[in-house]
Amino acid sequence: MNQLGVVKRNIVRADKAAVEKLARFTSATIHEAMGRIGLMKPYMRPIYPHAQVCGTAVTVLLQPGDNWMMHVAAEQLQPGDVVVAACTTENDDGFFGDLLATSFMARGAKGLIIDGGCRDVKDLTEMGFPVWSKAIHGKGTIKATLGSVNIPIVCAGAFVNPGDVIVADIDGVVVVPAAIAQQAADAAEARESLEGEKRAKLAAGVLGLDMYKMREPLEKAGLRYID
Amino acid sequence: MNQLGVVKRNIVRADKAAVEKLARFTSATIHEAMGRIGLMKPYMRPIYPHAQVCGTAVTVLLQPGDNWMMHVAAEQLQPGDVVVAACTTENDDGFFGDLLATSFMARGAKGLIIDGGCRDVKDLTEMGFPVWSKAIHGKGTIKATLGSVNIPIVCAGAFVNPGDVIVADIDGVVVVPAAIAQQAADAAEARESLEGEKRAKLAAGVLGLDMYKMREPLEKAGLRYID
Amino acid sequence: MNQLGVVKRNIVRADKAAVEKLARFTSATIHEAMGRIGLMKPYMRPIYPHAQVCGTAVTVLLQPGDNWMMHVAAEQLQPGDVVVAACTTENDDGFFGDLLATSFMARGAKGLIIDGGCRDVKDLTEMGFPVWSKAIHGKGTIKATLGSVNIPIVCAGAFVNPGDVIVADIDGVVVVPAAIAQQAADAAEARESLEGEKRAKLAAGVLGLDMYKMREPLEKAGLRYID
Amino acid sequence: MNQLGVVKRNIVRADKAAVEKLARFTSATIHEAMGRIGLMKPYMRPIYPHAQVCGTAVTVLLQPGDNWMMHVAAEQLQPGDVVVAACTTENDDGFFGDLLATSFMARGAKGLIIDGGCRDVKDLTEMGFPVWSKAIHGKGTIKATLGSVNIPIVCAGAFVNPGDVIVADIDGVVVVPAAIAQQAADAAEARESLEGEKRAKLAAGVLGLDMYKMREPLEKAGLRYID
Amino acid sequence: MNQLGVVKRNIVRADKAAVEKLARFTSATIHEAMGRIGLMKPYMRPIYPHAQVCGTAVTVLLQPGDNWMMHVAAEQLQPGDVVVAACTTENDDGFFGDLLATSFMARGAKGLIIDGGCRDVKDLTEMGFPVWSKAIHGKGTIKATLGSVNIPIVCAGAFVNPGDVIVADIDGVVVVPAAIAQQAADAAEARESLEGEKRAKLAAGVLGLDMYKMREPLEKAGLRYID
Amino acid sequence: MNQLGVVKRNIVRADKAAVEKLARFTSATIHEAMGRIGLMKPYMRPIYPHAQVCGTAVTVLLQPGDNWMMHVAAEQLQPGDVVVAACTTENDDGFFGDLLATSFMARGAKGLIIDGGCRDVKDLTEMGFPVWSKAIHGKGTIKATLGSVNIPIVCAGAFVNPGDVIVADIDGVVVVPAAIAQQAADAAEARESLEGEKRAKLAAGVLGLDMYKMREPLEKAGLRYID
Repeated sequence: MNQLGVVKRNIVRADKAAVEKLARFTSATIHEAMGRIGLMKPYMRPIYPHAQVCGTAVTVLLQPGDNWMMHVAAEQLQPGDVVVAACTTENDDGFFGDLLATSFMARGAKGLIIDGGCRDVKDLTEMGFPVWSKAIHGKGTIKATLGSVNIPIVCAGAFVNPGDVIVADIDGVVVVPAAIAQQAADAAEARESLEGEKRAKLAAGVLGLDMYKMREPLEKAGLRYID
Repeated sequence: MNQLGVVKRNIVRADKAAVEKLARFTSATIHEAMGRIGLMKPYMRPIYPHAQVCGTAVTVLLQPGDNWMMHVAAEQLQPGDVVVAACTTENDDGFFGDLLATSFMARGAKGLIIDGGCRDVKDLTEMGFPVWSKAIHGKGTIKATLGSVNIPIVCAGAFVNPGDVIVADIDGVVVVPAAIAQQAADAAEARESLEGEKRAKLAAGVLGLDMYKMREPLEKAGLRYID
Repeated sequence: MNQLGVVKRNIVRADKAAVEKLARFTSATIHEAMGRIGLMKPYMRPIYPHAQVCGTAVTVLLQPGDNWMMHVAAEQLQPGDVVVAACTTENDDGFFGDLLATSFMARGAKGLIIDGGCRDVKDLTEMGFPVWSKAIHGKGTIKATLGSVNIPIVCAGAFVNPGDVIVADIDGVVVVPAAIAQQAADAAEARESLEGEKRAKLAAGVLGLDMYKMREPLEKAGLRYID
Repeated sequence: MNQLGVVKRNIVRADKAAVEKLARFTSATIHEAMGRIGLMKPYMRPIYPHAQVCGTAVTVLLQPGDNWMMHVAAEQLQPGDVVVAACTTENDDGFFGDLLATSFMARGAKGLIIDGGCRDVKDLTEMGFPVWSKAIHGKGTIKATLGSVNIPIVCAGAFVNPGDVIVADIDGVVVVPAAIAQQAADAAEARESLEGEKRAKLAAGVLGLDMYKMREPLEKAGLRYID
Repeated sequence: MNQLGVVKRNIVRADKAAVEKLARFTSATIHEAMGRIGLMKPYMRPIYPHAQVCGTAVTVLLQPGDNWMMHVAAEQLQPGDVVVAACTTENDDGFFGDLLATSFMARGAKGLIIDGGCRDVKDLTEMGFPVWSKAIHGKGTIKATLGSVNIPIVCAGAFVNPGDVIVADIDGVVVVPAAIAQQAADAAEARESLEGEKRAKLAAGVLGLDMYKMREPLEKAGLRYID
Repeated sequence: MNQLGVVKRNIVRADKAAVEKLARFTSATIHEAMGRIGLMKPYMRPIYPHAQVCGTAVTVLLQPGDNWMMHVAAEQLQPGDVVVAACTTENDDGFFGDLLATSFMARGAKGLIIDGGCRDVKDLTEMGFPVWSKAIHGKGTIKATLGSVNIPIVCAGAFVNPGDVIVADIDGVVVVPAAIAQQAADAAEARESLEGEKRAKLAAGVLGLDMYKMREPLEKAGLRYID
């Protein structure tokens, strides 16, 4: 019955080509392309404004005030992975700093998403290791209690399976289930291809009211213009 | 009885000269000059640190998860306007992104104040379109329910009438009622003219205690110095 | 019985050499070196990302909406001090701006930690006067009610005695009791001297699991690897 | 320009018959009847579960940590009034307790809505004086700075004019502009008259899907049933 | 790809005997028995203190400000079900009131868990229909956008599959996956059977230090007693 | 240097007569009598409305997700004590439930103040063991890391020394330093003796404006009455 104390070694990562294609789009575009789902809550913020990442999830379930499982997770990392860490309860301690980042980078990891705190932000920024977190906090943690690695988790309100694609940027973090990664990438591409034309029209002064043909539905809905 | 579903076309914008004069001062100075009123709540933050704007309010009342009225508002924009958007309830969805910003800029709008979420922050920063918002969130919205444009609204705790002057910078957002825009600009100027001299004195080591003659009232209030 | 209305003039500042040594370490390292205590809550954020300070605390207890005691505190400042301001209640008003910063700098103060609001952030950034605060808010304050200067205070969850060492950076704010400043500096140095070697190993691909000899305790705790 | 330091004596209270009629409905029903507007934010909670009030607003604008204006407001109270107090900034101090409640009751006031703190909750409950507040806090206040009485205010996100009708219960607080009090009462009555029949049908097992004829629009919107 | 606009009709509900057995234990006991997992976040509170429920989940994914799917869910309810509603974004609107409760009760539903707002709390209390919600808010909702019914959802930080067992009381809400319902019930029973004896010992003055044999591990961990 | 891992056995409890006298007054009255200091933050709420306690503090410093020190504290309890528990970081786990309450009651403890979570609220209410906490949460804790007992702590923003007097009721929690307990009790008595007369006057319709002679200072401050 227990989900704690488990490390799954062989996870199925999303298709590489799909991941590479998803890397070309923003989190907002991908979330739209998937039908407006998959976003984490907006309290997840990057530690520096230009942070950007796209990779496959290695998941970690932490215990409050304890980052033992981060070390266990390091061994499971493959190049191109993004670590996604949740906690069994709300806790903003600094579970992650420059030493773990050094280890994660040496394993080829591309970033961290953590529903908790992060520290050594100056070093992480200089190293170029992007982190999205709920808090920045110098508070240290212990290594005493088992969580899990590569089990399904809920992180910042989103459900994440190991191997899913994570796309994160200044707008937030989106989770793309591995099974629909290619489909989502294609949909994002289709969506974006339409945007260039729209942008040009709007820049030329055409109103969305006309471009999207909204005047009739607005009138039907009862919109009244007064002077 | 219904305030929803209304678009007011002819609003009286604050006097242009007054708006231009107000643009020279910070939100904090203007709020002080008006007698310490008019500020929005401090959860309203600029999407980039150097964001700064001064213009006349076109107001929007949104429904949760719905940005239909933003498109309706675009048509009402005139050069120099700042869009001020409230929502009928608390909602942090990304009501606004780069396409709407393109449209607003094409109409001459100078910025957006939104008691909700904003997205495409990287694009908006590159475009130089300043936004003050409650959240950054990739979450998309629909276009299904009527709100209103150019009715009086409450945005982030402040009452805003269409045509009022909005001054926003890194310290926050202040609303100057159109009717007192010139008076507020003059008071801000008067206030600021005094600050240069004060700053020079304080920089030279004069204490506020002496410059503001506080020693006597502090003593009267019962202040005790101990060693 | 009353702690309000008191200004203590002669406080014992932490040893200068210890303060200088502490300045070489981050808040996170020092907090670890002290046994993981002394941090303020993570809602205290610097007003600009590269803010960094180390100095001796001059404490201020403010009343809500009132910054009178900041002026009283200015007179008690000595070069190398950091002002630490608490409030008798939760209040995010802009207690501090560029004029007070000018005065504090003229007295040799190096920064401000305030469990409340701060304003004139653009000026403060240009002046290079670092502030860690709970909020940025243009809201002005009055000068009408007595608080105290240089009494023990609770600021953002941390207990601060006048004369204690304050180290603050992007990770947060740590308070080092004056009596253990040298000891904490030595412990921080010892801790950091170990980090270089660890970092090199981790960068070379050695796992924390092996470097910290965690495999055995993890197994004892019941960790199961599955495929 | 200054809205502070003003007491308006002659305010136009909403029509008595309309107020009496509105007293028969809940805040939720009235808000619906007005087109889903007028509610304060949901952080406003009654100090005891069965609190319920309907009356005309006497408005107060307070300064943080200062309840001077509550005493000024007492003189302006007439039987049937409900005091609605906002603050120039966020502040949870205990602006109101049993002595002020005694005074307000002696003047015929029926309750208090305060976007701040309240104390002496045990006494207030025994006295049967209902309060909706943002916080319960023992923190005392001073009497030193001017606010205003009977000016338009923003309280918990809602705009309130003196004389407007306030209806509050366990679901929250709704503001009915005096000018539409009768209209709102009639609309609430109409709305409620329909509910009895609906309730009976639903209790008998009729589905909302059928009663509200939703099956067709749901199908058009694309709803898919799977097994 | 789209998870929205789907209603799953045939869900596998947890074993009836297991549900009945789980009803005998508190949410805290069951969460402990499952290895300290499965709890929703503590912001979920019952609308009245004695609320208590145990049943099988029918899940609903709502759109902000829209309760259309609640009506669709009603048709899927069977006696003994508990509705668990999440929203695609943070939203505290009053999605649920006495009419829907009447319909749900007529279908045999035993309660509602909603990561959003609830209203008509007085009526719901009188009807004895228990609700755990994030907010109490009179704010009404529309019926315009598709969500889903009986898909896996994340509600208040917990992952819920349709058919899972929900146990809720004053301590919070716990989710028991249907597949381990019997196992969890047995573990809860085992756990509770030990508690009576412990309680008796502690009531007799035996210390937990001795009963749980903590003195030795505490000493090993370095606990120092001083006078 | 380490404050963790320490249990102080012999603490000086506040004078018994003073504690008994303080028990006659509310937390708000005592806080006023001490000069408006000593209150914990208002997020500390009683688990049932009629909770009330007055006793001497035994302090506990907890680690996140760990209640080991609560068992250590039990041994240090004497009749009339109130346990005051802080945590080294923000954590809402359910550190305390009915078993610990049974043990604490057996030792003569009168209540608990905890800047964290509490569970088994139904049992605690039936046992009549009052708790003021930051959260109600079923989340269980482990017993693995050392904190301390009877060291000075910061709890919910207030500084507490072991032996201080704690007075808590529905308005919140106030800390009275042991050294001034008698003085505070006398001041509270003096304050309350004045309230009866005031209450009678106010109930008779006398205005605070007249009773407190506020008309002149209000006029001096510039209050304007308009019609």
